[in-house]
This record gives sequence, structure tokens and C-alpha cells, in this order.
Amino acid sequence: MKPVLIKHLGQHKDQEVFIRGWLYNMRSSGKIIFLIVRDGTGLVQGVVVKKEIGEEIFKIARNITQESSLEIRGTAREEPRSPGGFEIQISSLKVLHLAEPYPISLKEHGVDFLAERRHLWLRTPRQSALIRIRSELEKSCRDFLHDRDFILADAPIITPTACEGTTNLFEIDYHGEKAYLSQSGQLYNEATAMALGRVYSFGPTFRAEKSKTRRHLMEFWMLEAEAAFIEFEENIRLQEELISFLVQQVLEKNKRDLDLLQRDPSTLANVAPPFPRMSYTEAVDFLKGRGVDFKWGDDFGAFDETIISRNFDLPVFIHRFPAGIKAFYMKCDEENPEVVLGADLLAPEGYGEIIGGGQRIEDLEILKERLLLHKLPLEDFEWYLDLRRYGSVPHSGFGLGLERLLAWVSGIDHVREAIPFPRMLYRMCP
Amino acid sequence: MKPVLIKHLGQHKDQEVFIRGWLYNMRSSGKIIFLIVRDGTGLVQGVVVKKEIGEEIFKIARNITQESSLEIRGTAREEPRSPGGFEIQISSLKVLHLAEPYPISLKEHGVDFLAERRHLWLRTPRQSALIRIRSELEKSCRDFLHDRDFILADAPIITPTACEGTTNLFEIDYHGEKAYLSQSGQLYNEATAMALGRVYSFGPTFRAEKSKTRRHLMEFWMLEAEAAFIEFEENIRLQEELISFLVQQVLEKNKRDLDLLQRDPSTLANVAPPFPRMSYTEAVDFLKGRGVDFKWGDDFGAFDETIISRNFDLPVFIHRFPAGIKAFYMKCDEENPEVVLGADLLAPEGYGEIIGGGQRIEDLEILKERLLLHKLPLEDFEWYLDLRRYGSVPHSGFGLGLERLLAWVSGIDHVREAIPFPRMLYRMCP
Repeated sequence: MKPVLIKHLGQHKDQEVFIRGWLYNMRSSGKIIFLIVRDGTGLVQGVVVKKEIGEEIFKIARNITQESSLEIRGTAREEPRSPGGFEIQISSLKVLHLAEPYPISLKEHGVDFLAERRHLWLRTPRQSALIRIRSELEKSCRDFLHDRDFILADAPIITPTACEGTTNLFEIDYHGEKAYLSQSGQLYNEATAMALGRVYSFGPTFRAEKSKTRRHLMEFWMLEAEAAFIEFEENIRLQEELISFLVQQVLEKNKRDLDLLQRDPSTLANVAPPFPRMSYTEAVDFLKGRGVDFKWGDDFGAFDETIISRNFDLPVFIHRFPAGIKAFYMKCDEENPEVVLGADLLAPEGYGEIIGGGQRIEDLEILKERLLLHKLPLEDFEWYLDLRRYGSVPHSGFGLGLERLLAWVSGIDHVREAIPFPRMLYRMCP
Repeated sequence: MKPVLIKHLGQHKDQEVFIRGWLYNMRSSGKIIFLIVRDGTGLVQGVVVKKEIGEEIFKIARNITQESSLEIRGTAREEPRSPGGFEIQISSLKVLHLAEPYPISLKEHGVDFLAERRHLWLRTPRQSALIRIRSELEKSCRDFLHDRDFILADAPIITPTACEGTTNLFEIDYHGEKAYLSQSGQLYNEATAMALGRVYSFGPTFRAEKSKTRRHLMEFWMLEAEAAFIEFEENIRLQEELISFLVQQVLEKNKRDLDLLQRDPSTLANVAPPFPRMSYTEAVDFLKGRGVDFKWGDDFGAFDETIISRNFDLPVFIHRFPAGIKAFYMKCDEENPEVVLGADLLAPEGYGEIIGGGQRIEDLEILKERLLLHKLPLEDFEWYLDLRRYGSVPHSGFGLGLERLLAWVSGIDHVREAIPFPRMLYRMCP
């Protein structure tokens, strides 16, 4: 008999099924035992009735410990009150491995306790649901871009130069030379965009920041798209469409996971283009109007972002930042050279920045000036300057932080739950 | 008028089109100029006729330098003799940026010269074709696994322990603690497989080997799949199906790219399950029969793999290696405990190993013994041992090296062309 995954039980209604998984929880009432079984794709309730299964197996069933692995066979019945919506009338049961007393019980545990046991914590329904949503988001990002003729061109992790200075970088000894773990693939993506037209990279990026906030990880995944011939406005539209598509995919494919996380889908259902926009200058006025002491030219902090984004039901673009607080490669607005053609996308409900993007400088001389202004060594950027020597074109791109996106979509408090094995300031184990 | 990508010209036969790209090559014959234009998705020949376009534009066209960026408009006509199969009768032409004299001319260059200019080398048709095939392979890997209910669970890059010793690892200073760049996500995948059932990771992995062969990179991408309840045989079948699917996808979607690379598709067309198999012991006899001096118990080198794989038209599985030459976590064959239930997949035509995989030890005590035998510190693996304490199940997995797969599928000599920015022993720039 072929095994069935719990998430596919709907295709086997009233049929005999064979399920393999682990015991998540148990309730017993003398003559009936309810086994809540998980297999990574969902939860199902197995019902063991003493007089049907016999004294011996019933005794075995009663002694199964949490997280023991087992195989069950029986008839699948729809049962709306049971977790996952199905119930299995168990006709046979086999314990593969009886687990030692499991450290993570079903009551509340402290975060440190759980983080130390991340390899086991991942088995709890909430954490599994988050990884399933993450998987769907990553897949949907790629599907969206492939459908629009973007080509995946992986950016390198080991890099000789740093695009925003070396203070927050992890250093490695590369066969005797100094090298750094990449904090962004963007400069490389600009090179591949000039070769391939529309490209993206999607991989781990690194920041050795000494910060300990609910929005920061030392190692996080970033989708970075870059396209030749695309300018500021088209870049914004691409982002709106991407985010809307991602949210719709999760609403469609991860219903049960959102339920598990108690995330109200109606807060996400209206995410569709166009998203509201606010210029940086408007945002500053907005903050001042709410009594925040903020000076034009300063960068927003998490607090400011929260105040702004709480004001919207949808993600909001903040655009045209002062050149001084943005990266050297951002193109200035011709109508107001004090600001750049960049935009950050803030998620609603106070989740803050999930995308940073904009149009890049295409002129060689202006780019050189900006490198000097940012005190970056020209010689390290000669290859990057080449992109403006040989067939420079208008181009734009953006970077989407996967863990922040997932935190917002799932409605969780801290990005440490948004990645299988988070790397935090004081933790990199397991 | 909406711009059209060159690869979509087939949908615009005999229509007016607008193309944006770069000049790859030019031929001129007094009154006609042929501009070969690339846009990253393909090549098209633009035809500029003096008496139709006028003296002034004709002069501009004649002076366009290699890699200048331009916009052309005109009628798309099918033309089998032209590169890409289409020709555009140019009615208007605009040069966006006139390139400085381009360092990579259309003649042959040395490998070092090209490697130093990787950001530009990528623009040549051959290199672009390789990245497009790579993109398709990565996408197809994910599609294949998602269709089979595998969940993406990214493995960490920064890791505290090393699964096969620390000699070949890049070390980093993680806020005062020693850490390493991961050379495999497998141990983590085993943990997520126990949480989610079927999982995969797909990301960069690192080996600080002092080797300089055509099969080695310091930074390479690896697809690693791991599944609970899957044993040796099912794991092999999954790999056969995956590889066959990937090859078929490339044959279907990258026809022009294979043409560009002069890769004969007929060598790939017969890749379908089942693949031939040879036990390690049979392979040793095979080598000896061909006069190779080889001792049972030794590991195969590139030379041996080449001799074996040249003997087959299909990829071949070599299975049941001596326990001593394989990783500590490999499960022994019950019928012959000297060998493990692992298999390597060798690509044909001498390309060597592209997959390593097998069934993992599920018994706690046996795993502990094996860790000790391999002189690995038990305390670093306590979390990994937990997977055998709490609901251990039979499980298997494999790791597929993307660059080696691409090298075989594309028929190229060296993996350095199989990744956008290769990290080699003596090169990590640009």
C-alpha cells in the first residue's frame, strides 16, 4: 500500500490509507485513544478503539511517547472538528521508534530554551507552518520572475570588496588574501544584467552588525532583481506586482498554515497594486505632524518606519530619499538632485522595510564622483565602472528581505522564527 | 511601442518591433550594414540599408562600436541563415551609449585575460548561454521537488561544526567565536526532514581545498534533498528521475543555447531511467580488467571515474562503497556490513561524479560509534544525535553539484564557466 501524505488526505476520503509520521499529542478516555500525528505536511487525528484493535495494540498505543515515529493504517474520514479536518479510524499501528522523553512539551517554553533546541523546535506545528510558508514564498518569487523572463544568475558569496564599506562584514582568509562574506549581490547583478538583460540572484547574505533587534539576522536570504532598460517607475510596478502575487499565493496555498499561526487572512486579502506612495519629504512632514522630532536628511529608524507603516493597510513606498543617506550607486532625481530615485517598501502593521530598490547611476563620471564622495577606493570598483564604459544603459533593481517578508505575511513578532537555523548575535548553534 | 525580447521574436513575425540591446558584431558592405544585436535572451541580425535609412543614420550605424547600447525598430522577418533565425529590417536606430574600445574582441583570448574580465566575458554568447542553462537547471530542480511535495528549508552557511572535519573549511570570526562556512547542509536537512518529512536545500557551499582541477571550485552550489521514510532504492529512483527531468527540460527550453555551445543534443536525448548500476566491487574489478592498478578499499580518483563513466552512454550509479572511505553517517548494508548503502552518480563522457547520496544511520548507538571511529567530537554532534533519540526513522538523501551537472549537460571542459563569478584557488576577483 502506497503511503499518503497528510496534506493529500482530501484525495482519499473514505478510503483505506497508510500514513507515516510522528506522534504530536495524545488524548485518551479509557476505551478510545486519540493520536494526533504529524508528518511534516499536516496534522491528522487517529482514533484507536480498544474493542476494535484489541487489548495488546491498545496498550502499545497508550504508551507511545511524544515524537515517537509510527505507521498507521485505517480509513480516512472527514471530520471538521479534528485538526487538519480529517480523522483516521486506525485498523493497524506500528511504532518504528519509541522516543526518549521529549524536551519540548506542549506547554510554553522560554525562547532561549527553544533556540538551543532549534532542530527539535522546528517540529512544532507553528514552526513547521512558517517554514512551509517560507518555501512557498521562495518558490513563488522564482516563478514570478521566470514568467517575466528574468534569468537566475547567482551572485558570489566570497567577495573581495564591499559595496557599503567593510565595518559590518564577516572577514575570511581566502588562501592568504582578505575576503568578505557578501552583504548584497547587487553590483554583480548589475554586471549580469548587462550580459543577460533581466536577472536575479537569491541567496544568503551576511551582516556582522552588533544589533539585537527583532528585525535583524546575521545571515538572511535576499532576492535581488536587476534589469537593464528598466527605470524607476517600472521598477516600482514590478515590486508591487511581485508582492501582491506572493501574498495571493500564500493565501491560496498556505491556508492551513495561516490558520495554525492564527494569522487573519483578511488583513492580507486586499494586497494588490497600486500601493500607496509617500516621498521621503512627505514622510518627514507626516512624522513631524505626529510630534516626532525628525530632521530632514536623517535616516528613518525602526520607530519612524513603524509610525509611517501603521498608517496604511497596504505596503507603502517611501521614495526619493536624500542622496546622503543612500548607497553611492543611486541615481539622482533630475527634478531635484538632492534626492535619489530610490524607494523602500514598508510592510503594514509596523513590520517596516521589506524592500529597498531604485534606479542606478549610468554615467561613468557621476559614478566616479559618488565613489569618491563615499570615500570608497576607485581601484576596487574598476570592474563595476566598466559597466558604464561599455554600453551603459538605464537600469534599476531591488532587494527583498525574505525573513522580513515572511514575518509580515505570517504575522510573527521576530525574524528568528522566519529561517530554519537563525544566526543571531549570540547564537549560531545548532 | 512596447519593447520585445529577442527570444520572443517568433511571436512577432512580420510585425514592427522595438528591440533594446548591445552591439555584438557588425558586417558592412558599402550600402548595407548588418548589425548583430544581443539583449541577453538571444541574438538578432539588424539590416541597415543606406538608401532606406538615409545617409546620416547610416553613418552613425557604421561607427557603432562593439558593446554599445542601442535601440532599434523595424520589421521582424524569419531568416534561417541569420543567428537566432530572425532578421530585422531596421527603420530607426538610436545609440544610447557609444562604448569605449571593448577589451574582449571576437578572436580568441587567454583564460586568465577573460577570467580577470569575467563581468564582461559573461556578455559573450557562449557564456550567456551557459548561465541561461544554469538558470533553467536550478528552476527545474525546484519544480521537480515541489511537485513531489519536498519543502525548501534553507540550510545555514555559518556553522559551528564541520561534518567531515575542519581541514578544508573557510574559517570566520563570528563575534569572537570560531565558525566555518558550510560545506554541506546535510546534517541540517536531516533535522528539517524529521520536522517536515521531505525537504531540500539549495545554496552555496564552500571547500577551501588547495586543488586546481577542472572539477573544483571554492564556492559552488549544491542541491541537497533529504526525505524521511525513504530508503536506498527509492532514493536512487528519485535521482534518476530528477536527472532525466532536468536534461529533458534543457533539451526543450535551451535548444538555441545548446546550439551556441555546439553541444550535440542527441548525446543527451536518451537520458531516461533506469540508469546503469555497478557496485563499488564490480567497478574495482572493471578497472583492474582495464589494467588499472587499484586496491579494494581505496577511493576513486578523477582518472578512475573517467574510465568507468566513459564506458556508459548514461549516467551510472556506483553503489555500496567501503565504509572507510565514506562519511560517518552512511548506513551499512545489512547483507555486507563492510559496505555502505551509498551511491555516487557519475555523468557520462568522463564528467565524473555529479551526485553523492545514500541512506543514513538511524540507530543512536551505531551513529555514536561511527562518530568516535571518525574521531569527531561527540559533543558537537549532540543535536544531530537527538534526531535518533526522538522518533528516528529510515531516511535518505543526496547532494547534486550544480556546476558539474551544468558542465556535463553543456559539454564544457571546466567548471569555471559554469557559475557567474567562479571562486578559484588563485582568483576571487571580480
